Amino acid sequence: MAKKTAISPTRAENYPDWYQEVIKAADLAESSPVRGCMIIKPWGYAIWERIQAILDGMLKATGHVNAYFPLLIPLHFMEKEAEHVKGFAKECAVVTHHRLTVDESGRLKPDGQLEEPYIIRPTSETVIGDAFSRWVQSYRDLPVLVNQWANVMRWELRPRLFLRTSEFLWQEGHTAHATPEEGVEETLKVLDLYTDLAEKNLAMPVIKGPKTPGERFPGAVETYTIEAMMQDGRALQAGTSHFLGQNFAKAMGISFQNQEGQQALAWTTSWGVSTRLIGGLIMTHSDDDGLVLPPRVAPTQIMLLPIFHDPDKKDEVRAHADRLLQELRGLNCDGEPLRVELDDSDRRGGEKVWYHIKRGVPVRVEIGPKEVEADSVFVGRRDKAHRDRATLSRADFVQNASRMLSEIQENLLKKAKTLRKESTVTIDSLDDFRDFFTQTHDDARVTGGGFGLAHWNDAAEGNEVLAELKVTPRCVSLDGDQEPGECIFTGKPSRQRVVFAKSY
Amino acid sequence: MAKKTAISPTRAENYPDWYQEVIKAADLAESSPVRGCMIIKPWGYAIWERIQAILDGMLKATGHVNAYFPLLIPLHFMEKEAEHVKGFAKECAVVTHHRLTVDESGRLKPDGQLEEPYIIRPTSETVIGDAFSRWVQSYRDLPVLVNQWANVMRWELRPRLFLRTSEFLWQEGHTAHATPEEGVEETLKVLDLYTDLAEKNLAMPVIKGPKTPGERFPGAVETYTIEAMMQDGRALQAGTSHFLGQNFAKAMGISFQNQEGQQALAWTTSWGVSTRLIGGLIMTHSDDDGLVLPPRVAPTQIMLLPIFHDPDKKDEVRAHADRLLQELRGLNCDGEPLRVELDDSDRRGGEKVWYHIKRGVPVRVEIGPKEVEADSVFVGRRDKAHRDRATLSRADFVQNASRMLSEIQENLLKKAKTLRKESTVTIDSLDDFRDFFTQTHDDARVTGGGFGLAHWNDAAEGNEVLAELKVTPRCVSLDGDQEPGECIFTGKPSRQRVVFAKSY
Repeated sequence: MAKKTAISPTRAENYPDWYQEVIKAADLAESSPVRGCMIIKPWGYAIWERIQAILDGMLKATGHVNAYFPLLIPLHFMEKEAEHVKGFAKECAVVTHHRLTVDESGRLKPDGQLEEPYIIRPTSETVIGDAFSRWVQSYRDLPVLVNQWANVMRWELRPRLFLRTSEFLWQEGHTAHATPEEGVEETLKVLDLYTDLAEKNLAMPVIKGPKTPGERFPGAVETYTIEAMMQDGRALQAGTSHFLGQNFAKAMGISFQNQEGQQALAWTTSWGVSTRLIGGLIMTHSDDDGLVLPPRVAPTQIMLLPIFHDPDKKDEVRAHADRLLQELRGLNCDGEPLRVELDDSDRRGGEKVWYHIKRGVPVRVEIGPKEVEADSVFVGRRDKAHRDRATLSRADFVQNASRMLSEIQENLLKKAKTLRKESTVTIDSLDDFRDFFTQTHDDARVTGGGFGLAHWNDAAEGNEVLAELKVTPRCVSLDGDQEPGECIFTGKPSRQRVVFAKSY
Repeated sequence: MAKKTAISPTRAENYPDWYQEVIKAADLAESSPVRGCMIIKPWGYAIWERIQAILDGMLKATGHVNAYFPLLIPLHFMEKEAEHVKGFAKECAVVTHHRLTVDESGRLKPDGQLEEPYIIRPTSETVIGDAFSRWVQSYRDLPVLVNQWANVMRWELRPRLFLRTSEFLWQEGHTAHATPEEGVEETLKVLDLYTDLAEKNLAMPVIKGPKTPGERFPGAVETYTIEAMMQDGRALQAGTSHFLGQNFAKAMGISFQNQEGQQALAWTTSWGVSTRLIGGLIMTHSDDDGLVLPPRVAPTQIMLLPIFHDPDKKDEVRAHADRLLQELRGLNCDGEPLRVELDDSDRRGGEKVWYHIKRGVPVRVEIGPKEVEADSVFVGRRDKAHRDRATLSRADFVQNASRMLSEIQENLLKKAKTLRKESTVTIDSLDDFRDFFTQTHDDARVTGGGFGLAHWNDAAEGNEVLAELKVTPRCVSLDGDQEPGECIFTGKPSRQRVVFAKSY
């Protein structure tokens, strides 16, 4: 069956290549000549700005403040926390010189060797912890609730746009507290914010919960994660929140005088989400026509498309569209002004429509001479098939535009939840586990198998099977009842099921 | 005369040390253990966020879009534009390795040497130009109007917080055009936006105009600047906009098919302002009591200060302040909601008031039992002396709050313009030039001399005198009439006066 689609290959034909083509067709990002680093193009960056605005608002509303810390980290800082350096040593970009000179052959070469090399931050626990050691003297200085929007670098040998790049953009929160209870509370509070960001804004359902010990952040006492399921059944770690105990306080010297007048070490947390969320967004909603954007994070929610073949009609069509633009821009959705644009480019009808389908604009409004005459609009919704369009009176559309966007937002979340439900199973034996992660699916999109919930008692057991199947433990879900059972690898008693999946 | 001040030393006693102390007292930033790099603390970063929001809005309203390009630049990119590399080679941080290992003595050392080193961007003309070479194929692809908010690195041997740091935050705009006229128009359009940012928002008057040839950006055909005068009479380059001609288009291969079907090189521009603006803001307005913030860029415009000695009064004072907070937050100033906060910390009366004076909050509202009873407020304005406070009825204050902020904004600009006028002279002889830049001023604050407007014919002449006096040509003003005259160094005919000054 040769259905015409905008994206080739389709999801069913080749999911990884489909992903790359969606990014290309929507003009979100491209590879750069700098190994493993991407260029985030304007439409992709505008999505990131939406994510930033939403999360930044949440963080400020919960008492966090933004600040900025150095890009470079002195090597001896990295040596202070043993687990931390072990976790990041293999992917550090190292600065060793501070100028260039021209050599005999006329080529540039590094010069001015530094006494101590610096690394480009892969994450900033050490350099921010060092600042906290100066800022925190007394219990009155606590808590410190700081966030930073920044670029970080982790050298990647197999980069994939948005999902895994040597440089990426993120926010990293770092907090210090007087008690472990407050530290854990903060860690979980941010995990809830991340869950809201993902589910209510990206329309991306997530399972939240602690990582198993082997999957913790290097140096953390506990790592909490939100795990999303992509359309191919694989898991994407979409955000993490770490309770660091006193590990970094000890390493960086964050101590304070407590209410009893004694010196004590602070309890710290750190947490982050990154441009990886855009990769998750793409793989959660997009279809064989291209990108699909939930209205909450769409830079443009409604695109007006004046379309006419007869140049004589241009002025009246354009005037009709302009009036509609002004009307819609006066409206709100979720307390924010509607984001409406008008495409007055020279693109011809079909090309113009497909351009915005592929870019994922939630609502397209075609306006031609027929619509001008009938005072109507021809509306396409990105959560429906591209041929499924409806004629509405202009007045009806204006009145319902905001509700239509909310509906699209809900539909996308519902659809993603349905897929996740269909691809999630509870597994009670090693044979079933093997079967689940090696099965051939009816829907060729689901190559990753899905989420398998199985009892696992001991992190030391089962790792060979997991490696062989390329499956990893994602987390223990904090939601839902946990009944005790038997570990599928050892048969020993187990308190809870772990979410297993192939992952990005 | 021992007047009590918040900042020691005063401006008159030691201007450079006063600057550092204002930053410390307002908790804006601090030095870090990373050579030449600063930590921007929450209050300083909040000012930067205000500047970002204002300028980002201006840039988007004029058709620019944001994007993000790699932090690292391949060495061979830098070799492509000879002037450019000459200008930046001495201050480049060089990445030579991509991992760390532990050596025999247990210490970390760089490992995984890169085939080609990278430099951390000091500016991104080359790496963005390389992207443009792929994006631009036809005249239909032009203009490209891209902006990036990013960190950059220029190794500094004598850093000063905000003014000169090895890493700083900025925006860098990069545009490509089909004709030189469009390129020049863009360069000047952005110069006007920068002028509005400085004058209407930072209340910092600037002289705008082209740099003299020796002061141009490395690789530019023409560099335009906005130059502000600090309270010590020195100039601060506050923003620059470069017309790059075809230099970078040639170096990076940005060519396109023009309307006539021929291959042509694009014309490019670049322009930027940075966290240096915060240094300019501090030195333009602050006084011997600390920071002074113009309301447009103040993170908090009005601070409510509940003050009471009798703990029994706490509830009623707090309730009165809360009501006022809600009332004020419903109001707008310049089309934005008023930024009002309430300080419910445990700080005692005088300490609480001084805390916000030093942080530069434009309006302080003290509320105690007396004010509750009279339904009044006790208001202090940061553009007036700290003792100069007034009792207003609550209703009057609420009604006039927005106007009061606008007044403060205007007053600060007026005051800065007056100082600049008083410290600007036209100079017609070399003797007067020498005198002006070596004089002892009645006001010890003005150590830099001020702006001297003198005819200068030939960039090859006078440089020894300038070096001796530590004076540089800042720009040729685009405003005001230019009458021909005689060069003070050579006596030859000169078309226009150049603004000379000592500078930061």
